Amino acid sequence: MKFASDNWAGVPPRIAEALMAHSGGQASAYGTSDLDRKIEATFNEIFECEVGVFFVGTGTAANSLALAACGKAGGVALCHDEAHVAEDEGGAPEFLSSGNRLRRMPGKLGKIDPEGLEPAFEKFRLRGVHHGRPVAVTISQATEIGTVYSVEEIAAIAEISHGEGLPVHMDGARFANALVTLGVTPAEMTWKAGVDIVSFGGTKNGCWCAEALLCFKPELVEDFAYLRKRTGHLFSKSRFIAAQFDAYFRDGLWLELARHANAMAQELAGVVENSANSRLAWPVQANQVYAVMNRDRAAAMLEAGAAFHEWPRPAAHRDVTGKGEGLYRLVTNFSTESAEIEAFAALLNR
Amino acid sequence: MKFASDNWAGVPPRIAEALMAHSGGQASAYGTSDLDRKIEATFNEIFECEVGVFFVGTGTAANSLALAACGKAGGVALCHDEAHVAEDEGGAPEFLSSGNRLRRMPGKLGKIDPEGLEPAFEKFRLRGVHHGRPVAVTISQATEIGTVYSVEEIAAIAEISHGEGLPVHMDGARFANALVTLGVTPAEMTWKAGVDIVSFGGTKNGCWCAEALLCFKPELVEDFAYLRKRTGHLFSKSRFIAAQFDAYFRDGLWLELARHANAMAQELAGVVENSANSRLAWPVQANQVYAVMNRDRAAAMLEAGAAFHEWPRPAAHRDVTGKGEGLYRLVTNFSTESAEIEAFAALLNR
Amino acid sequence: MKFASDNWAGVPPRIAEALMAHSGGQASAYGTSDLDRKIEATFNEIFECEVGVFFVGTGTAANSLALAACGKAGGVALCHDEAHVAEDEGGAPEFLSSGNRLRRMPGKLGKIDPEGLEPAFEKFRLRGVHHGRPVAVTISQATEIGTVYSVEEIAAIAEISHGEGLPVHMDGARFANALVTLGVTPAEMTWKAGVDIVSFGGTKNGCWCAEALLCFKPELVEDFAYLRKRTGHLFSKSRFIAAQFDAYFRDGLWLELARHANAMAQELAGVVENSANSRLAWPVQANQVYAVMNRDRAAAMLEAGAAFHEWPRPAAHRDVTGKGEGLYRLVTNFSTESAEIEAFAALLNR
Amino acid sequence: MKFASDNWAGVPPRIAEALMAHSGGQASAYGTSDLDRKIEATFNEIFECEVGVFFVGTGTAANSLALAACGKAGGVALCHDEAHVAEDEGGAPEFLSSGNRLRRMPGKLGKIDPEGLEPAFEKFRLRGVHHGRPVAVTISQATEIGTVYSVEEIAAIAEISHGEGLPVHMDGARFANALVTLGVTPAEMTWKAGVDIVSFGGTKNGCWCAEALLCFKPELVEDFAYLRKRTGHLFSKSRFIAAQFDAYFRDGLWLELARHANAMAQELAGVVENSANSRLAWPVQANQVYAVMNRDRAAAMLEAGAAFHEWPRPAAHRDVTGKGEGLYRLVTNFSTESAEIEAFAALLNR
Repeated sequence: MKFASDNWAGVPPRIAEALMAHSGGQASAYGTSDLDRKIEATFNEIFECEVGVFFVGTGTAANSLALAACGKAGGVALCHDEAHVAEDEGGAPEFLSSGNRLRRMPGKLGKIDPEGLEPAFEKFRLRGVHHGRPVAVTISQATEIGTVYSVEEIAAIAEISHGEGLPVHMDGARFANALVTLGVTPAEMTWKAGVDIVSFGGTKNGCWCAEALLCFKPELVEDFAYLRKRTGHLFSKSRFIAAQFDAYFRDGLWLELARHANAMAQELAGVVENSANSRLAWPVQANQVYAVMNRDRAAAMLEAGAAFHEWPRPAAHRDVTGKGEGLYRLVTNFSTESAEIEAFAALLNR
Repeated sequence: MKFASDNWAGVPPRIAEALMAHSGGQASAYGTSDLDRKIEATFNEIFECEVGVFFVGTGTAANSLALAACGKAGGVALCHDEAHVAEDEGGAPEFLSSGNRLRRMPGKLGKIDPEGLEPAFEKFRLRGVHHGRPVAVTISQATEIGTVYSVEEIAAIAEISHGEGLPVHMDGARFANALVTLGVTPAEMTWKAGVDIVSFGGTKNGCWCAEALLCFKPELVEDFAYLRKRTGHLFSKSRFIAAQFDAYFRDGLWLELARHANAMAQELAGVVENSANSRLAWPVQANQVYAVMNRDRAAAMLEAGAAFHEWPRPAAHRDVTGKGEGLYRLVTNFSTESAEIEAFAALLNR
Repeated sequence: MKFASDNWAGVPPRIAEALMAHSGGQASAYGTSDLDRKIEATFNEIFECEVGVFFVGTGTAANSLALAACGKAGGVALCHDEAHVAEDEGGAPEFLSSGNRLRRMPGKLGKIDPEGLEPAFEKFRLRGVHHGRPVAVTISQATEIGTVYSVEEIAAIAEISHGEGLPVHMDGARFANALVTLGVTPAEMTWKAGVDIVSFGGTKNGCWCAEALLCFKPELVEDFAYLRKRTGHLFSKSRFIAAQFDAYFRDGLWLELARHANAMAQELAGVVENSANSRLAWPVQANQVYAVMNRDRAAAMLEAGAAFHEWPRPAAHRDVTGKGEGLYRLVTNFSTESAEIEAFAALLNR
Repeated sequence: MKFASDNWAGVPPRIAEALMAHSGGQASAYGTSDLDRKIEATFNEIFECEVGVFFVGTGTAANSLALAACGKAGGVALCHDEAHVAEDEGGAPEFLSSGNRLRRMPGKLGKIDPEGLEPAFEKFRLRGVHHGRPVAVTISQATEIGTVYSVEEIAAIAEISHGEGLPVHMDGARFANALVTLGVTPAEMTWKAGVDIVSFGGTKNGCWCAEALLCFKPELVEDFAYLRKRTGHLFSKSRFIAAQFDAYFRDGLWLELARHANAMAQELAGVVENSANSRLAWPVQANQVYAVMNRDRAAAMLEAGAAFHEWPRPAAHRDVTGKGEGLYRLVTNFSTESAEIEAFAALLNR
């Protein structure tokens, strides 16, 4: 019954074995080994184009360095009001971009409303140097609250952003989960829809520590090697990241892992929906389930060994019913088993 | 014949196996798992005191965050003229400390000369806010050129630094190599000699990616959790670092690996010293051999498959003999075999 | 009819004469002259306590350095949603504080609602290092939209902030205008109400370039001399700022200038209120008048030589009436004359 | 006998009167007034080309923002070992450029030796991302120790720098003093010799606070407006800087002031040279005199009311004679009078 986070999981055997297999011998360091090169080529194949690939170790590093690569003096990146970059990365996007600002944009279900972008851009035009200048639009796929942008929604945001001369960044910490939900190709979900730079996450979907900054616009990554080094994010034995991705992509493992996590989330969503003691806060589209539950019940379940987090929301939303309800996040992962969900259901409906 | 760097090596079987062993189940993230806690306790035992332990993924991160933790507005950290922080970390120490400066100090054999510190401090006192203020003294053990500070040398630097109210940081990327050379305890080489904060490196001595920031002064680490997070260096599945250290320390593996690397360096030093085509640039005290070799010979050896780097030195030192000589760095590691050294010797003396 | 901004004005004769009077002789530089010392003592008298005084040249520098002095790694300063620091300082508060973030708080009439602070603090407590940590609450007096906090309102915010261990900063770019509105003493409007650090502005009220960072908590200003120097804000001939303040405070000139500006704003407010072509957007409490006017009329007035700015507002507020109305800001200053207001009225009512 | 610094002086009557003359009326703010525009045109005339002009308030701001405009991730600016940017600006060049580093280059008499540049560049090429990348070469004219580069020396440095694709910055805090020494035009001393960006100082030569960032390469200043704003260096009543420059340039006042200061320095140099109690440390080429004097004598003179500073030098240089000598800096300015020098001579030779 551990639904606290997908990063509580470890790694599946095939990834652990890959690390074992690649542990011997010597290989040139700092991202220059044959294995690094091979995996970069794999990314090209998967994305059906030539893509700049830079390995880093954390999603926060990937997102922050992506925004830093887009950054300028007085720069402002536009993100959703509940975006991970704005809420949960400890100020890294600002710090690693030398003080660029995040501007929070409104939008339902965790997704930026394209219609909200234009007034924001107008303000930049009106106020000039005092208000700063926009440098990027960043979206999360899947979003922080487990919803998924459609390809059309991504394209609509990208069109407006490109109209302002701005690159579009995608925080893909749960890239695979969104991809299998949409049933499209990686290319369709990214550069074909107008995305310019992607934080491609492997960690939440089964790697120990494997993230890749992918860039479809070469001019954005000119500085990237230096940005990564000066923040301490260039790994000497970089091949250990490459080795994880080697196993991750082989025989479609990554899609298999994501499909399993998503299927478990649907199973869990069914439990939440069909219980008299809970309901879904909004639709489940990837591997996160947001449930409104009675607070006492939730406390009892945690006491009984379930693991999940209460989700902070604006005060007004905290308990709309006046019935002592709270909002909780439940996350499934590649290793979640049906038995855990059944045990959770039993506790919920006791 | 791969002597390019100790970070060209992979990991020994016992570390790969530990990652395999710890890959299952779920564990709380971001450094809060039981395994993280256990390894922190192991550090306390090894250092015979209560020590603040923070895992990071690269040596550059460890050093830069250590100096950032000591940093202040207008701050200047004093390091040796050839220190890794000043020469090879791409500006990370400055960037992650929000613009603190490194001041290069002279000293023979890669080691800060304690007598050079006082005039530097005097200048800070004379010039006040304009010149900035010293915030730390940082030394490398083993040094960037493979030499090792004696415990007395460390203590002499620490005494002067503490007299100025400054903490002493040790870049221990090759901590184990220095330790087995000196034959002292970790405590004797650090806090007992006056060192306040250590970048404890595991990567160059056999881990994939395992470094620990160790702090003996609690007040220096108050901000550390936030410093690490805002630079993207907090790993979600932090237990994969803990797992590496678990194997690293078990049954003294770390010391065994370092002893082997150092012994191989001595063997290689013997080859260099006894050849008519080369000589040692200075004594070998850890796992790095600096050799003066004929440039044509060196080129031929590289051509024949040997791997090592020419070492940039001030122009004046480049070819003191006028005989077409260059300075080269040769690094051994935990997996270096005598056969490699023999093959190297054969090429050198051909 | 120049109501574009109070910083379009020059300086009154008494300040120009002071600069003339102090222009001869030599005086020690970088804030150490006798005149600097004398003005610092004047601040102590005016604020009835020992106050740390640091001269800087711009309001943006004063605000940003104040927040930098409060800053920490992962730090977040809470400000009103429309605050100058967040809207109009080009990212300086983030940049000069090494990437600290501004969190926008809601509140009517440009003032932070104390009730909104607690939920924000709760979120910091829940999310720990990921969400960052609050480091200061900053308010503007008078606010960006020309309203004025009562002493009680300030005290309420300060009480909550201090309860969280946070200092309160006041952006006093229009300190004098607010002070004469409230009719209280400088001490009552600041430290007696719980304010810890003030950006005391002279420029908008008749100086060329004279701002002072005032600090009532010595521990907050320990680093200030270094923060100011490393951002290039320490003036060599600092006495030229001191000379301006010398005249500014002599015989209560500063209060006289502010009273005049505020009186002119009331006169202008009467014009706006009594015209069929305009209305006040909200009450006028200092020297700024926010008027809702017909867009065509406003354009004609600008054409005819009036100077004022349209004010960007959320899209929804832009034209509530559907009558083609816009929101405009009109600012009076120490040199505004009734004749200008009469000319403005004639145009408005033509 | 006040020879402590040229920034101990105030302003000459013609500059004070200009501030008086421009103090009335209203003018658009933030560098957009007619007077700002007019002075920008004056700079074009003086430099015989179209030049980007940005006013700031301090020399540290001008230098640091110039280097920030040239900055990149991992960037390193090369300066002389004794440069003001490296010794006396409190870390501002590093901080305002988001952590770029200064690399100190050797050279006699305070001037970079062009021959020393090539080995530095070679090291950058050899070590790649780890060592960072050069982004600018910065020289001071006149230098920190009062010497002056010849036009040929400037051109030699610029040629090498441009060969590496690097812009050349000139710290012209004492631009006028060097210019009248060389007897060339502003164009000849800057862009015609290959200088790309200049910190043009007015403050040390008679302004209260007037510095201009001048740029001859438009692409370098694209970001400058944002760089200046986000560091708090954009003045609202910018015309007060323009007004100072208006008087400064009128009828060649600036050259007249510099010629006077330099002439006084020569007079003072004669005194030092002809006394049995002192000697010149090196030739006097602008308005600074470096004198080697007996320490006891110097102390007595300071006691008697003279003002000057001991100059910190490497320990080895501190007292070459063993006679108890020290190195002292004496600076003349636009208001220095012969009577002061005579009084100084009397004390020195008493």
